[in-house]
Amino acid sequence: MNDQTKPEIVGIDDIRAAAGRLAGVARVTPLLESPFLNDLAGRRVLVKAECLQRTGSFKFRGGWSALSALAPEARERGVIAYSSGNHAQGVAHAAQLHGAPAVIVMPKDAPALKLANTRAFGAEVVTYDRAGGESREKVGEAIAKERGLTLIRPYDEPLVIAGQGTCGLEIARQARKAGVETADVLVCCGGGGLSAGIALALEAEAPGLRVRPCEPEGFDDTARSLASGRIERNPSETGSICDAIVTPSPGALTFPILKRLAGPGIAVSDAEALGAVAQAFLRLKIVVEPGGAVALAAALFRKDAVEGDAVICVTTGGNVDPQMFIRALETL
Amino acid sequence: MNDQTKPEIVGIDDIRAAAGRLAGVARVTPLLESPFLNDLAGRRVLVKAECLQRTGSFKFRGGWSALSALAPEARERGVIAYSSGNHAQGVAHAAQLHGAPAVIVMPKDAPALKLANTRAFGAEVVTYDRAGGESREKVGEAIAKERGLTLIRPYDEPLVIAGQGTCGLEIARQARKAGVETADVLVCCGGGGLSAGIALALEAEAPGLRVRPCEPEGFDDTARSLASGRIERNPSETGSICDAIVTPSPGALTFPILKRLAGPGIAVSDAEALGAVAQAFLRLKIVVEPGGAVALAAALFRKDAVEGDAVICVTTGGNVDPQMFIRALETL
Repeated sequence: MNDQTKPEIVGIDDIRAAAGRLAGVARVTPLLESPFLNDLAGRRVLVKAECLQRTGSFKFRGGWSALSALAPEARERGVIAYSSGNHAQGVAHAAQLHGAPAVIVMPKDAPALKLANTRAFGAEVVTYDRAGGESREKVGEAIAKERGLTLIRPYDEPLVIAGQGTCGLEIARQARKAGVETADVLVCCGGGGLSAGIALALEAEAPGLRVRPCEPEGFDDTARSLASGRIERNPSETGSICDAIVTPSPGALTFPILKRLAGPGIAVSDAEALGAVAQAFLRLKIVVEPGGAVALAAALFRKDAVEGDAVICVTTGGNVDPQMFIRALETL
Repeated sequence: MNDQTKPEIVGIDDIRAAAGRLAGVARVTPLLESPFLNDLAGRRVLVKAECLQRTGSFKFRGGWSALSALAPEARERGVIAYSSGNHAQGVAHAAQLHGAPAVIVMPKDAPALKLANTRAFGAEVVTYDRAGGESREKVGEAIAKERGLTLIRPYDEPLVIAGQGTCGLEIARQARKAGVETADVLVCCGGGGLSAGIALALEAEAPGLRVRPCEPEGFDDTARSLASGRIERNPSETGSICDAIVTPSPGALTFPILKRLAGPGIAVSDAEALGAVAQAFLRLKIVVEPGGAVALAAALFRKDAVEGDAVICVTTGGNVDPQMFIRALETL
């Protein structure tokens, strides 16, 4: 382990505890399948539709996991998060449901829908200039200190990783029910919180299933980090339509987990992500945002990168502006 | 009962038997909720997302129910159905999975996606001219007789009503889990197979829930029939974007059930149906076709027609052409 990373401090017990706190609150999202997609991919494609989760992405799991574990006095002071939009909504809604104030730091060029929804969930939104080189970590940490807020990091936070891992517990159960014991599990990957959480859950509950992080071309920091064995950074933080999963690098907590458990990463083009958005519309009747569709894109359009008779993909979010969705539909 | 109708020959036992045959094959679709839609409607809105059913509509339930109950020799000869597209796909896919030949009679102006999918499910598609006044019933019955096929009617068929009723069993269970014991259940209504099946299931399992059939303005034959107490017909069979639920009149089998159990019907405009398609995209991340969105449209835009603190809507199908979906998104 190199000096950028930290020892694994989150495990299956934390995920099971988070599942207990999430029961009856988070949705058990369905595992969908379409014969048309199976034909296109040349193997069975099982799609874990996390876009149907509360707030439109898996991020509600991590937000609720963190909020529900806070001490009452910390919850009363409130929480802060920085996010391009899905973690923002997940934390804002979880805070709202707990009656806790929330400040969310978001890039000023985040999709309009994500900005509006975060405000509608009752959070105070503070914007920063992503292209101008401002660091959201620095902005977030400064406000947290000033107001006594608890910072809920988007991925390098054990309670958040544990919350996202509950998705992996469901995948293990649902895949078994669908008759799939051995498969690659393709996960759209930003900082790696969901990929790491799912990897830990599968290690314990479905060891024949292996996580493969999926990213946009040009922002494949996790794939490159897995290849080199050390944390690599992206040259830029803007320029992809997959805003949900553009992060500078894998996390200090998430990367060691992925290094130990994940298979090689897969990168797809923006055009392939849009193609997957369109196929999800046409064949599964679900709304997926481009960043939430890269795993399905890998299954459909990078079949040689995948192994086995079946593949599982997590469609991680559906918070897409209508104009971007129309762009995807126009490819059909 | 007037002389157009028949006695009730399908009941809760048939629905429970169909549920047994559908277990592990049909999806248990989720009951979704969004705080944004609750705000818009002024009450809780629970959405039964049948667009996520296999083949993209609830019709797979009825198709599988009928196919799975056929004698082996009848199954071998094959089945025939007439449909604007969703029953077509439901029967075609159920037949394909049973290894049975299927002929489907469809209007030649049915949505391109529905025609293509029905063929892709392995069925032979025969088209007829809806605007020119050809009767699909006559076309279908002639071919059935000629080739010895079993006709699977879209709604006036006990096995089909029983299959659709399994959706009602799920609603009863899921509504209770969501804390809703008393509510109107808005159902997009064509010939009334789904509405009647759900009504029978709710009578037995959730008597506080009451079916309200929802239709497009100008094609509200069921609402008018419920008001007059006898079967009324629509003046036209074309001219709505809600193709899935434009039928000439309620069925001889379905109407007596609705007359006994359903509340008054509700009609919505095409613009309201498109608005509901857009809200389902934005807030629930599901793809709904206009005819599958009229119940949600009634909940969102005809709130005065609905009673109670909560309302349940069935979004019955998602087989919509991209151009129509873009039209809905452009209203946002």
